Amino acid sequence: MVQLTQTVKKGGCAAKVAASELRKILGQVQFPPNDAAVMVDGGLFDDAAIYKISEDLAIVQTLDFFTPIVDSPRAFGAVAAANALSDVYAMGGTPKTAMAILAFPLGVLENDVIVEVLQGASDKMREAGVSFVGGHSIDDDTLKFGLSVTGFVHPKRVWSNAGARAGDHLILTKALGTGTCMASLKRQHLTEGQLQEPLNSMMTLNQVLDLFSETEAASIHSATDITGFGLLGHSQQMAKASGKTFSFTFSRLPLFEQTLSCLENGFLTKAHASNAQYTQAHCRTDGLSPVQKNVVCDPQTSGGLLLSVDPAQSEAIVKKLRSRFGRAGVVGSVEPASAWAVDVLP
Amino acid sequence: MVQLTQTVKKGGCAAKVAASELRKILGQVQFPPNDAAVMVDGGLFDDAAIYKISEDLAIVQTLDFFTPIVDSPRAFGAVAAANALSDVYAMGGTPKTAMAILAFPLGVLENDVIVEVLQGASDKMREAGVSFVGGHSIDDDTLKFGLSVTGFVHPKRVWSNAGARAGDHLILTKALGTGTCMASLKRQHLTEGQLQEPLNSMMTLNQVLDLFSETEAASIHSATDITGFGLLGHSQQMAKASGKTFSFTFSRLPLFEQTLSCLENGFLTKAHASNAQYTQAHCRTDGLSPVQKNVVCDPQTSGGLLLSVDPAQSEAIVKKLRSRFGRAGVVGSVEPASAWAVDVLP
Repeated sequence: MVQLTQTVKKGGCAAKVAASELRKILGQVQFPPNDAAVMVDGGLFDDAAIYKISEDLAIVQTLDFFTPIVDSPRAFGAVAAANALSDVYAMGGTPKTAMAILAFPLGVLENDVIVEVLQGASDKMREAGVSFVGGHSIDDDTLKFGLSVTGFVHPKRVWSNAGARAGDHLILTKALGTGTCMASLKRQHLTEGQLQEPLNSMMTLNQVLDLFSETEAASIHSATDITGFGLLGHSQQMAKASGKTFSFTFSRLPLFEQTLSCLENGFLTKAHASNAQYTQAHCRTDGLSPVQKNVVCDPQTSGGLLLSVDPAQSEAIVKKLRSRFGRAGVVGSVEPASAWAVDVLP
Repeated sequence: MVQLTQTVKKGGCAAKVAASELRKILGQVQFPPNDAAVMVDGGLFDDAAIYKISEDLAIVQTLDFFTPIVDSPRAFGAVAAANALSDVYAMGGTPKTAMAILAFPLGVLENDVIVEVLQGASDKMREAGVSFVGGHSIDDDTLKFGLSVTGFVHPKRVWSNAGARAGDHLILTKALGTGTCMASLKRQHLTEGQLQEPLNSMMTLNQVLDLFSETEAASIHSATDITGFGLLGHSQQMAKASGKTFSFTFSRLPLFEQTLSCLENGFLTKAHASNAQYTQAHCRTDGLSPVQKNVVCDPQTSGGLLLSVDPAQSEAIVKKLRSRFGRAGVVGSVEPASAWAVDVLP
């Protein structure tokens, strides 16, 4: 049985180009002007974009792909699909169609691996009510897989990064630590059998809207999903976009059972360092231990949603989220802007 | 100055997974059911998909990406963009938004290469009136670039592969031979300077609808773009979908100045063989020489549109096409179904 993580050098969102490098590169390109219908433009290469079709309808678009972060082909397909669909959910949208992005080492891996990867992704699309409408495949040295996803959202009900309000509670839907846990898998310290909790978490769709009443849904002011830049990196982007300070309490953050021991054992990725660098000027983590700092910089693959919620509704929202996301909870609050975009207390 | 073709093993659409292998693989996957709004589903991994939004509007979706087929980063970005946008034009649609798919060997190639690739693509998006709304980038062993594109089309004016009618003229908008010409570039037999004709052709947008009157546009019954499976492979798909036989006259096919000599010198790709295999049971090419057979199997990158057109309008259409596509012309006709999907006469 092939172990996919042994076929690549680095896996998952940890393999993405660092945010600071990307910003420098994109600043030098003369992009075409945006159509007036573009409401949100994923300029930083990582958010979903929103394009308005009518007063009642906008389309949400995103794409994501990566090298294997897990060993089983079917689990890899499911994680990659859940991860790509998540960007639509993070905008308050409902995914409708998906196209596959597949790079495959023909003749090196068995073709059955493609079948399994596509089956894992198809199972998630079925669960999400998404139609699989095509894609593109190439012969390549290492396996990469992901989806380009299109969804619908009402133009007035978009969860942009800029909507967090002072006083909001910050709710995180999934535990942290997929980066270090999957690094320990890749270096064969732990097995998939020992990592069922993070594996199941990565395969869980970030579909939440169907859980809520209209009042509850309207109390969600802003959202993002936590992926490659870690809790700190994505919170920093959202806090800056909203012009607020996000305050987290480390002890309230949900972690996988193995997260701390994996970090203590030194299972790190390149992204741990680049995320620390990306966030150091704007995030205060003085009170944290080195291992705790690595938790908040841990690159997540198919991580949770971070929701900024009216405090009057947060208890009801957490209760409903728990029916699907066992580790969901309030992990911090939104404060008026201070010297820091993000402040993490022990 | 880096020569991008020297950084990869195989380039462009020649690197795609062969159609016959793909068909076998996809046949084993239990895909999710399609939403009733899916009008066209790019099941074979290579056409654009159509999703109906209302009686007046459908969205066209496609994605395409590949390794460098040319040496200059800016030209590579432009070719990749023109190639990806082409699938929307081939459905009769107008592209609106695009997201980038970028795999890049950080630390191996200079970051300036990314800037140039994105600039080349942005220039084409500007020309096409397309907004660049995001994308995803990963660190990878070799450069790959492409776009996921969304466009609009009227649901009743879709150019499907299934609409060709007996008696139609077949019009091809660009000359053939990018596969062998770029193979000669990669093997350093010819330079980009010597290959300006195919380079310019690959960078030319397949935008045609704006040239035509309503009557002319309505006389186009079916269309496809000629890419990795070559003239024969894509014609076979369209002829079968339409339940007709496509008859070509080899002597009428436009070729780049260097196409025949490159093929005679043995500049072939893996796709020449796999395209021949893919088409052998359904296409008659008995009367052609071995070199001519390789012309019709030559994998095109950003190749021309093949339009199936009412004969009463074909002269007017060719005349208007020539203002933008100097090599456009009638290359064959659609016949009632015979034993062959495609018949190529000398």
